[in-house]
Amino acid sequence: MAREWLLDMPATPKEEFPGFPAALSHLLMLAPQEICDALERRVRTLEEALAAADLSGESGYDIRGTTFPGVALLEDEYLRVVVAAELQWLWSVVDDLRSGDLTWSAAISAEDSE
Amino acid sequence: MAREWLLDMPATPKEEFPGFPAALSHLLMLAPQEICDALERRVRTLEEALAAADLSGESGYDIRGTTFPGVALLEDEYLRVVVAAELQWLWSVVDDLRSGDLTWSAAISAEDSE
Repeated sequence: MAREWLLDMPATPKEEFPGFPAALSHLLMLAPQEICDALERRVRTLEEALAAADLSGESGYDIRGTTFPGVALLEDEYLRVVVAAELQWLWSVVDDLRSGDLTWSAAISAEDSE
Repeated sequence: MAREWLLDMPATPKEEFPGFPAALSHLLMLAPQEICDALERRVRTLEEALAAADLSGESGYDIRGTTFPGVALLEDEYLRVVVAAELQWLWSVVDDLRSGDLTWSAAISAEDSE
């Protein structure tokens, strides 16, 4: 892996916000119940990813005979922090969709899209 | 935008974790000061993105003559929640790097990589 990539990559987070926010911005095309189902599937996938990250927790990283505690855990830690924040937000959105506090009329029905 | 993509995209979050976690998993190749500088640049970029999202806050979305409050704001809300969580974590990592609580020897020096 190139040094330049490692140095530049962290500073350019915009390239990392891909599909999901784009999908969110087009929610009006779907019915609330449809997006609620999709978000619940996302919740389950993220919960599984979190559980896997918790299970993989190593206590250190060995390289050239030296143990580096902490550093190698940053990736897991990052994913845990970001995924936990997203899950909390997803739960609140799914709650609002289920209760009807958040609702809209789908702009494009299944028939329209064909 | 295809209905199928909108329905399937939210449920497949794994494809959305791209460069940054991968870079984190290779931190040992860089010196602590180098990655500290890179993370501080990331902090500044994310802070700017957050400020922009706060400024863009609309109060509703008008489609076919009807105002849909809330729904159109989900994308901004999502980015705010996830970016805020990441920033909090980045600040703690940068603090630990500056204080020396988190450190390591770079496995690959600038010369090695050429």
